[in-house]
Amino acid sequence: MSSHNDERDIFTSISPSEFFYRNRQMAGFGNPVQAVYSAVRELVENSLDACDDAGVAPVVSVSLRQDSANSVAITCADNGSGVPYDQVASSFGQVFYGSKYEERQRRGTFGLGVTMAVLYGQITTDMPVEIHTKTDATPGRFFRVFINVERNIPIVDTVLSSDRSERGTTVTLHIRGELRRAQERVIEYLRLSTIGTPHARIIIHLNESSPLTFGPWHLQTPARTRVMRPHPRSADPELLRRLIASNPPTMRIQDLLVESFQQLGERTARRLLSFISINVNHPISSLSREDILKLSNALRSFDGIDRPSAISLSPIGAEPMLAAVQALFKIDRVVYSRSPINEWQGNPFLLEGVAAIVPDFSVMDVPAIQRFANRVPLLYDTGDCLLNKVVHDIRWSHYGLNSRPVQLFVHLCSTRIPYKAAGKQSIASIPEIEHELIVLYKNLGRLLRESMRGSEKAARASKRMREFAREFRLIVKFGSELAEVDLPDTDELVRRLFEVPKDEERDNTA
Amino acid sequence: MSSHNDERDIFTSISPSEFFYRNRQMAGFGNPVQAVYSAVRELVENSLDACDDAGVAPVVSVSLRQDSANSVAITCADNGSGVPYDQVASSFGQVFYGSKYEERQRRGTFGLGVTMAVLYGQITTDMPVEIHTKTDATPGRFFRVFINVERNIPIVDTVLSSDRSERGTTVTLHIRGELRRAQERVIEYLRLSTIGTPHARIIIHLNESSPLTFGPWHLQTPARTRVMRPHPRSADPELLRRLIASNPPTMRIQDLLVESFQQLGERTARRLLSFISINVNHPISSLSREDILKLSNALRSFDGIDRPSAISLSPIGAEPMLAAVQALFKIDRVVYSRSPINEWQGNPFLLEGVAAIVPDFSVMDVPAIQRFANRVPLLYDTGDCLLNKVVHDIRWSHYGLNSRPVQLFVHLCSTRIPYKAAGKQSIASIPEIEHELIVLYKNLGRLLRESMRGSEKAARASKRMREFAREFRLIVKFGSELAEVDLPDTDELVRRLFEVPKDEERDNTA
Repeated sequence: MSSHNDERDIFTSISPSEFFYRNRQMAGFGNPVQAVYSAVRELVENSLDACDDAGVAPVVSVSLRQDSANSVAITCADNGSGVPYDQVASSFGQVFYGSKYEERQRRGTFGLGVTMAVLYGQITTDMPVEIHTKTDATPGRFFRVFINVERNIPIVDTVLSSDRSERGTTVTLHIRGELRRAQERVIEYLRLSTIGTPHARIIIHLNESSPLTFGPWHLQTPARTRVMRPHPRSADPELLRRLIASNPPTMRIQDLLVESFQQLGERTARRLLSFISINVNHPISSLSREDILKLSNALRSFDGIDRPSAISLSPIGAEPMLAAVQALFKIDRVVYSRSPINEWQGNPFLLEGVAAIVPDFSVMDVPAIQRFANRVPLLYDTGDCLLNKVVHDIRWSHYGLNSRPVQLFVHLCSTRIPYKAAGKQSIASIPEIEHELIVLYKNLGRLLRESMRGSEKAARASKRMREFAREFRLIVKFGSELAEVDLPDTDELVRRLFEVPKDEERDNTA
Repeated sequence: MSSHNDERDIFTSISPSEFFYRNRQMAGFGNPVQAVYSAVRELVENSLDACDDAGVAPVVSVSLRQDSANSVAITCADNGSGVPYDQVASSFGQVFYGSKYEERQRRGTFGLGVTMAVLYGQITTDMPVEIHTKTDATPGRFFRVFINVERNIPIVDTVLSSDRSERGTTVTLHIRGELRRAQERVIEYLRLSTIGTPHARIIIHLNESSPLTFGPWHLQTPARTRVMRPHPRSADPELLRRLIASNPPTMRIQDLLVESFQQLGERTARRLLSFISINVNHPISSLSREDILKLSNALRSFDGIDRPSAISLSPIGAEPMLAAVQALFKIDRVVYSRSPINEWQGNPFLLEGVAAIVPDFSVMDVPAIQRFANRVPLLYDTGDCLLNKVVHDIRWSHYGLNSRPVQLFVHLCSTRIPYKAAGKQSIASIPEIEHELIVLYKNLGRLLRESMRGSEKAARASKRMREFAREFRLIVKFGSELAEVDLPDTDELVRRLFEVPKDEERDNTA
């Protein structure tokens, strides 16, 4: 825009890596403490995803060392699938490049995080990222990579043949950071990561101290998530236009709908098209802009469309999640609940949660909350996060839980997590998710109340039983002495008489 | 990463507009209510910046109309500098393109916001953005622009000659949204915008109702901000390497430093170079990687470097800010304070604030806060925002303010605002800013306490004076009757005797 005083503005475009170089706090690299945490998080996310891809139980080893006053060396080694050699440079040295843009649940999704850690390392210590990787098909290779920030392209500094005995990837970064101030958060993050991924073993080496190990708490490796066709609710005009462009121009509109979307059979497609007066045989190339808009509105609001398929999601599951929570916390009562699958803007999602009484924790009016998104624990930016805000909308006193040390663990999984920022700490307010959250929290409140009532009832019954048994034993003893017979087993008689509820068998309760 | 079950991952790169298409909640377009607010905000920010560029008092007119059940038409018209014709398409249709990447205070900075509003409009209503603009040098032209999201390039749909009598720009968008639920926020945003920009007149047309007008509250047009050379504290290796590449290879390192940075004269440069044992005559082309890292560390930590220059910043100022706050709120006492200029990661910033007693507001333990960044009010995501978090770290009872209806208005200005997300609602935790914030809030607390004490003292003194004056008048009257002279002017005598403090003249207090 021209100015009145001869200082003409200069119009330019910047690359995405330049954008995040200038605004690194948006990606979680705003200060040296958070930077250490974010770098660890991005590396571990990638490692766990690579292990899921390989279908193995993850063994992830993280080393952190303060190697100068300002600089921390971070190494993350995994037994995952390895990275194909031709993808190493771009995966680590190019923002918005990656393998995770498919619509299925992964920890990483942006093609941003690890590159951001590399970029931060480069601009603060001037050191490249080092990658040593081996896939099933390759013997192993070592890379050193820098980033050309202005152009958003990788600079490969070194490539060496370097055999590895085991498949997997080892990444080393040097970043400006203060390990001493960051280490508590990092340990907490890795510890909680084994709730999100209970079948993982995570080992931490901090400077010279002896290693810490968390997990595995459960041995079941979850099924690999699969990509599904988009759900009709995601059909904005942009998507429809892309689908039309990628199919033969003579294709019938009905066939486009049936073949492109999930949960949309021929019958539904016909009903929907007749509702908006578009002929089922209309060739897709001759749809007008208005047709496309009408179609988009119809797909997003039509009643007869089912909820999305669950195969692109990977919830933790009741057993693994309860096992992990019980392994990490000293717990009194604990319950689990899961929401049905639903969608936001067409993206499938579901929620699961655990509510626990943790006697060591302090009592609060509102339960404490630990948040997870696609199996990743979220530690920062609780205040404006939807998962936390909704906790305050529930009347916990209604469940008798306002004077108990209740800890909630809530997990949102989705093919797309609506993070508020690229730093992935906080969930945006999405009405569909908010609705399911309220239901989930209420269910957890109800289940926990029932579980406590159950245990109080059981305690009362068991006390009554013990008292009765004592008297009964005396009477039986007296009777058997009178009758001169052997003393019978009174305990079993008493138990059958009382039928004490076995609380552990209750659904969703451990 | 290759997988165990023959599903090979596909590696791809995506464009920045594709990224924000997928993650629109990051840019403030997560739901139809916030989308209306964000679109208005981005348009108004651009308009006010264009008026600053033109050096005129802004007159910005915003119209919002629910033009179908799902769609809102938003028009924003300004009297700013206009957009050069050859920049219209990219400015409105390309993410990360703009005129605001220079290091000076502007409302917009990312080259993202308006394009994001256009993108959201396109994917929800399939409508292009319409721009009618005229600069000093041109008669006026009309454009219709779409975005090619996958490639992040504009698609110019229409260009028409269309004269405008006055310089400026009018932009119209159609987006999915619910005006009824968004309008309160939008009005609040525009109202508060006249605190950030007290010399602006903002007019709002909502559907068919009669227009609302806010401002101007103060007639002084601020000086245009100017670009300064970078401050030495921003000299990471990336920046140094860019400076070296853009200068002649034979240039002496001392000259590079002195010519590239502000607050770095020859003497300081010599001392700094000798401190890290680099010869002042060393040609820049032969600096090793280690030299550059040493230099970077020295520039970022060397003691003898002054705080940055203020000419790239534009605080609101005491008089305009107080005038605006007093125009918009019914206020009892009000004070203003400003921090000295400082830098975070080399970016100049300063803070200013107003603390007011607003009798209509409810009393709280901690003052309510209204946040501004580069003159823009921030309405969402208060919980995790640094400006808000620090308020809770101050012991307000120390200033006797914990039982008063105190409202704070705080303004952060910087050449770069450390927003947590591209949606620009919340400030990240930056240690340097946090430090100055604490000082500012304490100053405001102290000033407000003094102002209240001052006014109580003045009230007591004035009461004493009135009582004395009544008696004095009687005595003088009695004396003058006895002496048979005319009655002298007792009021002036009393005033001189008491020397009542005139509170309005106190610094920073109104």
